[in-house]
Amino acid sequence: MGFKAELAARAGQVDAFLAGCLKGRGFPAGLLEAMEYSLLAGGKRLRPVLTLTWAGLLGLDRESALPFASGLELIHTYSLIHDDLPAMDDDDLRRGRPSNHKKFGEASAILAGDGLLTEAFGLMCASGLARGLPADRVLRATSVLAAAAGAGGMVGGQALDMEYTGRPGLGLDELRTMQAMKTGALITAACLCGAMLSGAGPEDLSRAEAYGRAVGVAFQIVDDILDVVGDQKALGKPVGSDQEKGKSTYPALVGLEESRRLAGVHADRALSSLAPYSGPDAEFLRDLARFIVHRAF
Amino acid sequence: MGFKAELAARAGQVDAFLAGCLKGRGFPAGLLEAMEYSLLAGGKRLRPVLTLTWAGLLGLDRESALPFASGLELIHTYSLIHDDLPAMDDDDLRRGRPSNHKKFGEASAILAGDGLLTEAFGLMCASGLARGLPADRVLRATSVLAAAAGAGGMVGGQALDMEYTGRPGLGLDELRTMQAMKTGALITAACLCGAMLSGAGPEDLSRAEAYGRAVGVAFQIVDDILDVVGDQKALGKPVGSDQEKGKSTYPALVGLEESRRLAGVHADRALSSLAPYSGPDAEFLRDLARFIVHRAF
Repeated sequence: MGFKAELAARAGQVDAFLAGCLKGRGFPAGLLEAMEYSLLAGGKRLRPVLTLTWAGLLGLDRESALPFASGLELIHTYSLIHDDLPAMDDDDLRRGRPSNHKKFGEASAILAGDGLLTEAFGLMCASGLARGLPADRVLRATSVLAAAAGAGGMVGGQALDMEYTGRPGLGLDELRTMQAMKTGALITAACLCGAMLSGAGPEDLSRAEAYGRAVGVAFQIVDDILDVVGDQKALGKPVGSDQEKGKSTYPALVGLEESRRLAGVHADRALSSLAPYSGPDAEFLRDLARFIVHRAF
Repeated sequence: MGFKAELAARAGQVDAFLAGCLKGRGFPAGLLEAMEYSLLAGGKRLRPVLTLTWAGLLGLDRESALPFASGLELIHTYSLIHDDLPAMDDDDLRRGRPSNHKKFGEASAILAGDGLLTEAFGLMCASGLARGLPADRVLRATSVLAAAAGAGGMVGGQALDMEYTGRPGLGLDELRTMQAMKTGALITAACLCGAMLSGAGPEDLSRAEAYGRAVGVAFQIVDDILDVVGDQKALGKPVGSDQEKGKSTYPALVGLEESRRLAGVHADRALSSLAPYSGPDAEFLRDLARFIVHRAF
């Protein structure tokens, strides 16, 4: 199987779980519709796939990690809904469709996000109980996830992004910190939590973390590059929207060529942290690191 | 010690923990300020006090339950911040001060709420690790909390509240369901989680749940009554704001006298579920049930 088919197969396992995970839970119909509109809108399922693959690489069957991994997609989805709100990035389009508040109104979009964030933690905790994972592993992994998703991670990164938007003279260090919090923390936690759920020891944990951090940086640099040179249809949003909004990006700060070089450096770091591993999960993680960077060329 | 002094002492234990729990965590300064503005604005700390007291009643030292209990106050606080937003209830005042978005702007208020909700789960999970509570108890309690706070509970109740606001002819059943989700679920979970953390058996758990449910209904009915007959200064918001916003309330549907009678019926149910217990924690829970209803007279 080629990499894209393999990615689709792994994402498909997540999609199948997501399709049912909010149903039959007594949610008001309108709220459920708004939550599923964004959750089931496709997407690469990158974060849960990373969790599943790291869990699998270190010896846990993927099925056991599936509810926890899917929780990461709920968190990612809520963050997109809230980031798109008029008071935040004010985006009308997401993945080529009206953004959540354009479709359902602002109140519903805020609540759909709140609901997804809360259910994410419910899923992660319940997964320990339902799938026979040791409770202390699940508790530790959920703590790591909360730290990565919260005010010291993703939410804090979005706050810095709002603060920096339109500010002239932002430096590369500030951009790095902001992106590491806004995008990097959750991607890193996705890898680390997969390893934690499998009961990995400190060396494997630090490799999972290093891989996640490197892939997260590469991913964000490439995202910045695609906003300059990408294809609107593939992106699902207008090209050049970062610049139009006065957001700092790697290409704006260091140029396109240097951005591509940096993305490559981080992809290589990701590959280094995989050196001790072999087998299909390790191959998939290698291909993923390469794939992320190739999108920028 | 009289009931009010006892309540203040128990709330004080929570306040002391809350005052430090967000500091030194690497949150961006502006975001931390917005989160603490609402979290440290006072309030009765009803939910964490219920958790601590049920934990204490059933044999756990209160100090062990403190981080978990405080997580409930973070969840309650986030819900107030988001409910006050212009797209939701559009309230300018909260506890006699400008609401969060009036003080910090909408984007910050949305993110402060998101941050508080996420940190709440971080606190609850970390509490198991830090305070030596058995991991499976913490995991079960956190699952219960997530269900109560999410789209099948508090978030779903707020969605129904938005849907029902201004709709004529709302029935008592719809009002009851909406309020049970919006306010009742978290108060019930506060009691139940305290009992769960202490390792209680099924009979104690069902008494904690029954007490929480009854107190939650009484509390909401009294809240509706106070919106009609209360004192603006004590409420921290204008009297009559429910009616002005077209929100259904118990007094509007069944009249003031019947509302008072119903509040009394639910307080009595709360007292019944405490029948097997004695000692200072049981006395405090009895006084609390009576106190909630006396506010309405």
